[in-house]
Amino acid sequence: MGNTDTLGTYADAELDLDLRWWKAANYLTVGQIYLQDNVLVREPLRPEHIKPRLLGHWGTSPGLSMIYTILNRIIKATDTDWLYITGPGHGGPALVATGWLEGTYSEIYPRVGRDAAGIRRLCRQFSSPGGIPSHVSVQTPGSIHEGGELGYALIHAGGAAMDHPDLFVACVIGDGESETGPLSASWRLPNFLNPRRDGAVIPIIHLNGYKIAGPTVLGRTSDEDVAAYLRGQGWDPVFIEGDDPRQVFSDLYAALAGAQRDILAMRAEARSEESLDGASPSKRYTWPAIVLRTPKGWTGPHEVDGVQVEGTNLSHQVPLSGVVDNPEHLAILEGWLHSYQPDEQFDESGRLVPELAALAPDGEKRMSATAYANGGKLLRDLPSLDLSAYEVEVGDNRGAVWFENTKSTGELMRDIYAADRRPDGGGTFRLFCPDETASNRLQSVFEVTDRCFMGPAEPTDQRLGPDGRVMEVLSEHLCQGWLEGYLLSGRHGMFATYEAFAMVSASMAIQHVKWLQHAQTLRWRDSVASLNILLTSTCWRNDHNGFSHQGPGLIDCLIPLAPDVVRVWLPPDANTSLSIADHCFQSKDHVNLIVVDKQKHLQYLTLEEAHDHCAAGAGEWAWASNLDESGKPDIVIACAGDVPTQEALAATELLRNHVPDLRVKFVNVVDLMALLPENDHPHGFTDTQFDDLFTTDTHVVFAFHGYPRAIHQLVHGRTNPGRFHVRGFNEQGTTTTPFDMVVLNKMSRFHLAKEALRRSTRRTAGWNSLVQLCDRRLAEHETYIREHLADMPDIADWTWGSGA
Amino acid sequence: MGNTDTLGTYADAELDLDLRWWKAANYLTVGQIYLQDNVLVREPLRPEHIKPRLLGHWGTSPGLSMIYTILNRIIKATDTDWLYITGPGHGGPALVATGWLEGTYSEIYPRVGRDAAGIRRLCRQFSSPGGIPSHVSVQTPGSIHEGGELGYALIHAGGAAMDHPDLFVACVIGDGESETGPLSASWRLPNFLNPRRDGAVIPIIHLNGYKIAGPTVLGRTSDEDVAAYLRGQGWDPVFIEGDDPRQVFSDLYAALAGAQRDILAMRAEARSEESLDGASPSKRYTWPAIVLRTPKGWTGPHEVDGVQVEGTNLSHQVPLSGVVDNPEHLAILEGWLHSYQPDEQFDESGRLVPELAALAPDGEKRMSATAYANGGKLLRDLPSLDLSAYEVEVGDNRGAVWFENTKSTGELMRDIYAADRRPDGGGTFRLFCPDETASNRLQSVFEVTDRCFMGPAEPTDQRLGPDGRVMEVLSEHLCQGWLEGYLLSGRHGMFATYEAFAMVSASMAIQHVKWLQHAQTLRWRDSVASLNILLTSTCWRNDHNGFSHQGPGLIDCLIPLAPDVVRVWLPPDANTSLSIADHCFQSKDHVNLIVVDKQKHLQYLTLEEAHDHCAAGAGEWAWASNLDESGKPDIVIACAGDVPTQEALAATELLRNHVPDLRVKFVNVVDLMALLPENDHPHGFTDTQFDDLFTTDTHVVFAFHGYPRAIHQLVHGRTNPGRFHVRGFNEQGTTTTPFDMVVLNKMSRFHLAKEALRRSTRRTAGWNSLVQLCDRRLAEHETYIREHLADMPDIADWTWGSGA
Repeated sequence: MGNTDTLGTYADAELDLDLRWWKAANYLTVGQIYLQDNVLVREPLRPEHIKPRLLGHWGTSPGLSMIYTILNRIIKATDTDWLYITGPGHGGPALVATGWLEGTYSEIYPRVGRDAAGIRRLCRQFSSPGGIPSHVSVQTPGSIHEGGELGYALIHAGGAAMDHPDLFVACVIGDGESETGPLSASWRLPNFLNPRRDGAVIPIIHLNGYKIAGPTVLGRTSDEDVAAYLRGQGWDPVFIEGDDPRQVFSDLYAALAGAQRDILAMRAEARSEESLDGASPSKRYTWPAIVLRTPKGWTGPHEVDGVQVEGTNLSHQVPLSGVVDNPEHLAILEGWLHSYQPDEQFDESGRLVPELAALAPDGEKRMSATAYANGGKLLRDLPSLDLSAYEVEVGDNRGAVWFENTKSTGELMRDIYAADRRPDGGGTFRLFCPDETASNRLQSVFEVTDRCFMGPAEPTDQRLGPDGRVMEVLSEHLCQGWLEGYLLSGRHGMFATYEAFAMVSASMAIQHVKWLQHAQTLRWRDSVASLNILLTSTCWRNDHNGFSHQGPGLIDCLIPLAPDVVRVWLPPDANTSLSIADHCFQSKDHVNLIVVDKQKHLQYLTLEEAHDHCAAGAGEWAWASNLDESGKPDIVIACAGDVPTQEALAATELLRNHVPDLRVKFVNVVDLMALLPENDHPHGFTDTQFDDLFTTDTHVVFAFHGYPRAIHQLVHGRTNPGRFHVRGFNEQGTTTTPFDMVVLNKMSRFHLAKEALRRSTRRTAGWNSLVQLCDRRLAEHETYIREHLADMPDIADWTWGSGA
Repeated sequence: MGNTDTLGTYADAELDLDLRWWKAANYLTVGQIYLQDNVLVREPLRPEHIKPRLLGHWGTSPGLSMIYTILNRIIKATDTDWLYITGPGHGGPALVATGWLEGTYSEIYPRVGRDAAGIRRLCRQFSSPGGIPSHVSVQTPGSIHEGGELGYALIHAGGAAMDHPDLFVACVIGDGESETGPLSASWRLPNFLNPRRDGAVIPIIHLNGYKIAGPTVLGRTSDEDVAAYLRGQGWDPVFIEGDDPRQVFSDLYAALAGAQRDILAMRAEARSEESLDGASPSKRYTWPAIVLRTPKGWTGPHEVDGVQVEGTNLSHQVPLSGVVDNPEHLAILEGWLHSYQPDEQFDESGRLVPELAALAPDGEKRMSATAYANGGKLLRDLPSLDLSAYEVEVGDNRGAVWFENTKSTGELMRDIYAADRRPDGGGTFRLFCPDETASNRLQSVFEVTDRCFMGPAEPTDQRLGPDGRVMEVLSEHLCQGWLEGYLLSGRHGMFATYEAFAMVSASMAIQHVKWLQHAQTLRWRDSVASLNILLTSTCWRNDHNGFSHQGPGLIDCLIPLAPDVVRVWLPPDANTSLSIADHCFQSKDHVNLIVVDKQKHLQYLTLEEAHDHCAAGAGEWAWASNLDESGKPDIVIACAGDVPTQEALAATELLRNHVPDLRVKFVNVVDLMALLPENDHPHGFTDTQFDDLFTTDTHVVFAFHGYPRAIHQLVHGRTNPGRFHVRGFNEQGTTTTPFDMVVLNKMSRFHLAKEALRRSTRRTAGWNSLVQLCDRRLAEHETYIREHLADMPDIADWTWGSGA
């Protein structure tokens, strides 16, 4: 737990050194924004030393590096593990500077050495083509959080702290970010963080008062109100305000050291209170927090052209923009750079002077080098379980057995939980779900663990308590973001949610794909476990909730993103779901979207068949096809997704029974990316594979889980893509029956059978009577609707072989 | 402002009547969930009276109807205007019941009469095929809020209150919803609501303690902590707790009456303080709020099969599920129904007894009939302005004039603001934007108004104050949701935001499309102004921010949604932007997505040409084509979006200069939906139009703003769609230069020219040398990147006619 005895007062000599380290960081920050040459200002500053484009954010940067500086002293003194989350991620140059000062940067990127040439490269690469991004990004050592799309700092921090019992997460939160929804909700963390097994998060709200163009809400809120807001949510804030560096450094050191002491005491209490196998701690914990009010753009130019810049939103990005053309501005910049006395902080060769270099912690204790921010280093494989224990028996009843498609995945997770459990109640796997674990038929996990809740208990509580490892909170943002933090710091998990409401956190999924896409290009970042998103309670079976709950749009959001990251899985039954879930849990660096409904559905494949089918990605189901020895179909009926598979099979049976001479090939797609050309996705079928499956000229009637045109974008480039006729969710929905849903969207067995007849190459016997049958059944349905509440023919009424 | 003198104490006789009205509402709620016959239980309840599927949510319903009942008394007594927002929208049957009791339901839906037959239909239609949804939905009179995707209750309430100075919005917030991000952020409303010109929002947090499967965070938070949380954000909460209806009714009446009194006093002060033309009020206002703790499923079965149901999450949906098969459950249901004494509340014919019917307010004072919830009734057209005042002069410099594409739209909004302004500072138009109005080059609006902020002022503030009408808050959720509430209650506006971060509120856009889609089918709902979303700071020009800021995904989210609602506009320049913005402001019932970058771009069309081009949706730009008298092209170069248009034009010029005999047709698409088949979208081109524009067989090189495959899904079904070769944003990005962005994504002029050559039907003179030129230029670019920070050839370096 680290050595806290050595954490004494903040001696003047220490403070002096820390202020110099901070100056060095600020110097390099300004340098990155402005300089392409003369980067140690050892000659007079001239226009040609200035970059052609001035990009970067100064305003937040000095605050970020100040906190970093002080944390380094605490880390050195206490030998503790810290992770730094930069909510104001636009302050990228500050974190690049501190990483360079610590030496990590040069270790990772040897071309950026620890000398003047390295500083020159450091400056030139920043925000430049072929260089590095302006934000705290994947490329920044020590980061698991980009901070571009604001709102997730405290969520990621919370996820990183879970199950890392010795970790301290310093989470800097900007006052702009504080206005976002996700950040606002994330203050409820104390209800979900258990000091017995989890690490700590110390939020540091950096109130510098301004966003890009105006004041922040929190910046104009009194200390009293900010304190009430935080206290009401389980935090005990300390307030620090000032613009005198010595004073602020002292106060912040005291606050951070005090926070660490409080947390260590809390841990000691929580962990010693009772044996770890015993009952849960009953105490509610209040966590320390820090509110830090310092000027925006602190230590930068106070006034430019007679207008105040420091302490206002004008310092947000580049406080002096006209330095090339305006000699006065150039002079201000030169003075600003010299104000950090670079010659005192860097030696002749441009190296950080030894007394400052000695301030950084050692090795992986450096926040820029911690394995907690390079989670793959900490990642341990999940236990490998024998899936046959969860197999749904299909036997001779292919297409005639009913089972909840997600249930066996829940059983798998139950046993992962059990096998993964640490003696202190921690582990490396968690399920995150907005209050729907049982609703989503994943309730088997509650056989071995509870919902996590740190609040007071009631006698009526079921499967609830502080030691619970299922994270339920009614916020997709929190669920997904906690999982992201959990994964990026080296653990495993799943986010399960209602399909439609996955769109609430769609932007987070997109940002996570972007993160992984760039992480894959960096050799120093070890692979992390995939982000697994299980969408259940899908559009087709939200007949009981209605239109707002019906939306498969996340598929469309992910399709265009990095092919090396994105996977979209549409298992048709429970064994395929199980096979895919297991695959996804073992996979790395992917975002796996699994779409499968929680309700009872027909079961088709044995587990062995499921493994083969999922590995292939798509294939013919010969038992459902109706081909002659030529093997050449008159029509291909394809499907992807559970309800589409059922309707497609029922349509196939209609065709087999009523138009027996029609040669039907039945194809199921479980890996949606198999449809993409092989050059566009690593799972994409070759053209030969694709043509073997779908032929080159036969029409394909395709029943698809999502929006129909998604298939059209995927099959572009294949032979004769115009022969694909897709039915899918067509944005028709309400509270109704499952069968009415497929009728409303024209994807019912009757619609599919009619379409197949219309598109087939031959008119064989029975054609007309089947068309009439389909029309009659649809007309009957219309009548049922008009006389509503009569019992409906339901998709649950049909099984394979029963005569559709 | 209503008559408050008549609001006295709550007499026992009044309370008795109100409790009976509440019983009637609860009775109808239970009836809707369970009954298909014997709906007044005038004969013993038998299994055949029970619906075949039991769908609906009981738990929250009695609380919703209690609040409604008491508000009715206040409305009657004070003659004030109230809007009811149902955060727990799953409590649909409660709001249907109260609407029926008030008579509104039967006025709107005459088939559901105010008698026993009407009650029978009311019950049978609920959550049934061909009936109505289970949630408070578009179909529910008095609603502007569906409540299916939780989180937006207080945001919609805030938007509805803005600029409706006499309105009171009662906003019921569930404790489940309170865990969401958007709801958590929305408590900052007091910083943005000005009692001088705006109505009031009274949040009523209904803490019944449970979600679907477990307790809520707020439900397990002490009154002290809840109070601190709310007070810290500008609210003054009153706490009510109990399970004795008489007591809770009395306490809630007192709290609501008190809240109304406080608000009226606040209004009087704010509005009389100084003349309305004078300075802004300097006072900070604290708004009343109510925290209501009552049992979940109150008045329902307390215990079923020995397990407590009332007061736990087990009452969330259908507390008794086995009523058809389980006689004991059936008996409990029968007793439950009789506990509301339906024979005392409804007369022989099933009509509400007169003394209860008299409790409802009159006409549009009924919350179920208020025009505030049917905003089209209040909608007044925006002033019609002469757009020529904002025209960017193109003259003879087509493709050679630079201008910010959004700036003239800002000027248009400035003059809308000015023309729309009410004497009290209110109006019917607002711009909502996360702190980026100026950054997005819409700063002209600040010539006539400020940013709205109710917090304390500082001397350095610019264009900021309580009377400001530009709503800036760093939350896409708040911006978009406020606008939705503003629009649905009868006003106009725009939400402008960074393109990538529009994904943060993408789910809200989807839900709004769904709302409008269903609203269009209801004759009683008058048309409302369109939701206009302006995406600026786009993927191609977030070169200064980097990859997290680069994402055009909202286009893909909207394409599959209701074609009668969705419009996607990609204006290539300022005059087209202006024309489209004006069109969108005048349009109704649409969601208009306008994607155009804020930076300086080349200008192509005069305003008159822009009008014609936008009205057509897509068309040839003959001045950029290079055709002979045959009119038949060897290649079509098409584009959609500003940067793609520039690159496509530069590629065309390359072809013209280097391969002059190649016949090039240049096509620009401004209305993306024109590409869809006419049967799939009202703006879709007929096949004839499409073939006239794109030919039937010539290859089309298409430069697209968004993800390339979006075009492929749109052109599916057209003649030879395989001949479309689309370049677009391919998820390659970082902090770099604009030109490097188009190179990274292979959409640069050189890529387009090469692709055009490769796809053209003829190899004419100059072919090889142009290929070589393109390769050379791209190789030079690679060299620039390697030696980064050298000056780059920039897309801003080229103008039409300058020789690409």
